[in-house]
Amino acid sequence: GKSYKIAVLAGDGIGPEVMAQALRVLAVVETKFSLKFEFFERLVGGAAIDGAGKALPEETLKTCEDCQAILFGSVGGPKWESLPPAEQPERGALLPLRKHFGLFANLRPAVCLPELTHASPLHPTIVEGGFDVLCVRELTGGLYFGEPKYIKQEGNEHFAVDTMVYWESEIRRIAKVAFEAARRRKSHVTSIDKANVLQNGVLWRRVVDEVGKDYPDVTLDHLYVDNAAMQLVRRPKFFDVVLAENLFGDILSDEMAMLTGSLGMLPSASLGETHEGSTSRFGMYEPSGGSAPDIAGKGIANPIAQILSSAMLLRFSCGEEAAAAAIEAAVKKVIADGLRTADIHTPGTTKVDTAGMGQAIADAV
Amino acid sequence: GKSYKIAVLAGDGIGPEVMAQALRVLAVVETKFSLKFEFFERLVGGAAIDGAGKALPEETLKTCEDCQAILFGSVGGPKWESLPPAEQPERGALLPLRKHFGLFANLRPAVCLPELTHASPLHPTIVEGGFDVLCVRELTGGLYFGEPKYIKQEGNEHFAVDTMVYWESEIRRIAKVAFEAARRRKSHVTSIDKANVLQNGVLWRRVVDEVGKDYPDVTLDHLYVDNAAMQLVRRPKFFDVVLAENLFGDILSDEMAMLTGSLGMLPSASLGETHEGSTSRFGMYEPSGGSAPDIAGKGIANPIAQILSSAMLLRFSCGEEAAAAAIEAAVKKVIADGLRTADIHTPGTTKVDTAGMGQAIADAV
Ligand SMILES: CC(C)[C@H](C(=O)O)[C@@H](O)C(=O)O
Ligand SMILES: CC(C)[C@H](C(=O)O)[C@@H](O)C(=O)O
Repeated sequence: GKSYKIAVLAGDGIGPEVMAQALRVLAVVETKFSLKFEFFERLVGGAAIDGAGKALPEETLKTCEDCQAILFGSVGGPKWESLPPAEQPERGALLPLRKHFGLFANLRPAVCLPELTHASPLHPTIVEGGFDVLCVRELTGGLYFGEPKYIKQEGNEHFAVDTMVYWESEIRRIAKVAFEAARRRKSHVTSIDKANVLQNGVLWRRVVDEVGKDYPDVTLDHLYVDNAAMQLVRRPKFFDVVLAENLFGDILSDEMAMLTGSLGMLPSASLGETHEGSTSRFGMYEPSGGSAPDIAGKGIANPIAQILSSAMLLRFSCGEEAAAAAIEAAVKKVIADGLRTADIHTPGTTKVDTAGMGQAIADAV
Repeated sequence: GKSYKIAVLAGDGIGPEVMAQALRVLAVVETKFSLKFEFFERLVGGAAIDGAGKALPEETLKTCEDCQAILFGSVGGPKWESLPPAEQPERGALLPLRKHFGLFANLRPAVCLPELTHASPLHPTIVEGGFDVLCVRELTGGLYFGEPKYIKQEGNEHFAVDTMVYWESEIRRIAKVAFEAARRRKSHVTSIDKANVLQNGVLWRRVVDEVGKDYPDVTLDHLYVDNAAMQLVRRPKFFDVVLAENLFGDILSDEMAMLTGSLGMLPSASLGETHEGSTSRFGMYEPSGGSAPDIAGKGIANPIAQILSSAMLLRFSCGEEAAAAAIEAAVKKVIADGLRTADIHTPGTTKVDTAGMGQAIADAV
């Protein structure tokens, strides 16, 4: 069978606990699909600050370079919150990883399963039957990385500058990702911008329209970001693929994730360019939720986000579609069977802990 | 009694219908509180594009300059949607008015009344008892007006640039507005930024912390904008005053407005500097919702947002607190009495049209 090298960066909080369950599931996949995974566990985030002086040590970065993909847990916690922003675990690990590996395409599914609509903060009439939105977020451009970016003093007053920049080619490549994804779903892309105020919005809309011409089978509409923040709440089922630049995608994907009510079940993928003639690409895979320091170490966290992240890894970075689908089917099965971790538990279902959920999914694979 | 000059810009869509009801209520206030209002009705938005060639004609602007305040309806509609962004009714009227009059402080209450929680898209357990959040949004800085701002071509590729700039003094004055407002409410300010990514966020947080020291009686906390988009959905009752820069305020205030479920009831105020030794300031007052072209001309729109906007006008631009409070009490009374326009109607309450609601509120004053 084929062999894959995977960097495993469990990080902080619930990261190590949920990662252990993902590795347990991957061990079963290895046997069942005759694959070989080589895992390289390295420090990242707060654990790396404590153990190696910075959130993303050289050693960790070098290991990632030697691998096909990164399976990432989560980083951050109260212990490191008073560090300067640039040194904090989240910012200090995630932004350099994204930039270094050119991970421009962030896929964040926000799925509210029909069985779990009760967990949603939305009104039952709105979420009835569940919903399934995929946020395609540009991840290496815009205000995050644009220059100039500084705080200066003039007279006795400071002022701050950040710059939002997008090149046509950056917009085009992320738009293509969104249209391709839509083709495998309900063929509907909603592109987000603020074209009534930002020049970036004007260019964004123009380029997305152009790319859309190559996908006449996909319905394209445009929403201003403020309106999108409203419509997601009012009618989440309207959306299929939501395409947004970096900052708008940050805000809206988190809003959607919360609307599902099951943050602990949402994976994400951050992908680089596809290599010529290859079906796989370098990527980083991580739960959408945070490190949840409040429940860390208790063995009650939901490992599904981490497990589904490993499924995305198999799909996008290894081209192992069958193995990915098997994990996803296993998750659906245990949910249908009524297994629930504390975050999504309701009377009449079976409460399990982190390990219990991981084991059940491994068994179902 | 005192006399006030008010520019009345009804605009498009439901603007003229709801404005008529606000004027009806103001006529009663005039008598009851021995005031004198001089109204100057002028063109704005799509109506002005059709009638005078642009969204904000000189004549309209001049009239506004001669007045103490602007009572604004709403602008925009499908007819003008294919114009270039800068010429469209919303953008072409609102941004120049804000900049021209230095309207840096946008107050947008998002109130979900206990009687109207059924209209909210949120789960009943989350909205039970209603909620009341005030968004204080900076309105003349940040990405909206920062320079440089352009689209250029290099080689055969275009790129776009927008600039986010904030001066310490701009942050300080809007922060003060938020803390002052909090003192008249539940003494809790939640400041929004993206300090983990933006230099603007770092400066914003620092200055807001400084201003907060002058308000030791007000609790201050900070949330990243992505987290705020989540928390508003999960626990709207946590919030009292939300303080945000221009773009974040645009997105979050719309999200909150939608969460109330009664967009047609939400007013807004956009205020300039207070003049030395004065209790009044120039301001523009308008419903938070849009021009709702789909229901325009049917006489069914909810006029309450427009009526409450005129109450804010009396409070902030005329210093007529008693008159403002009388209007607000009248609105509460008709809601308690069970009167409802179509947007908030439920079985067991009394359905009224736009004029019926306006008349009832005028009577209650
Ligand atoms: C931690 C932060 C820098 C990051 C971002 O803003 O991109 C996070 O919010 C995310 O969405 O992955
Ligand atoms: C129309 C648009 C320019 C405006 C804004 O973004 O400020 C609107 O969304 C608002 O919130 O008043």
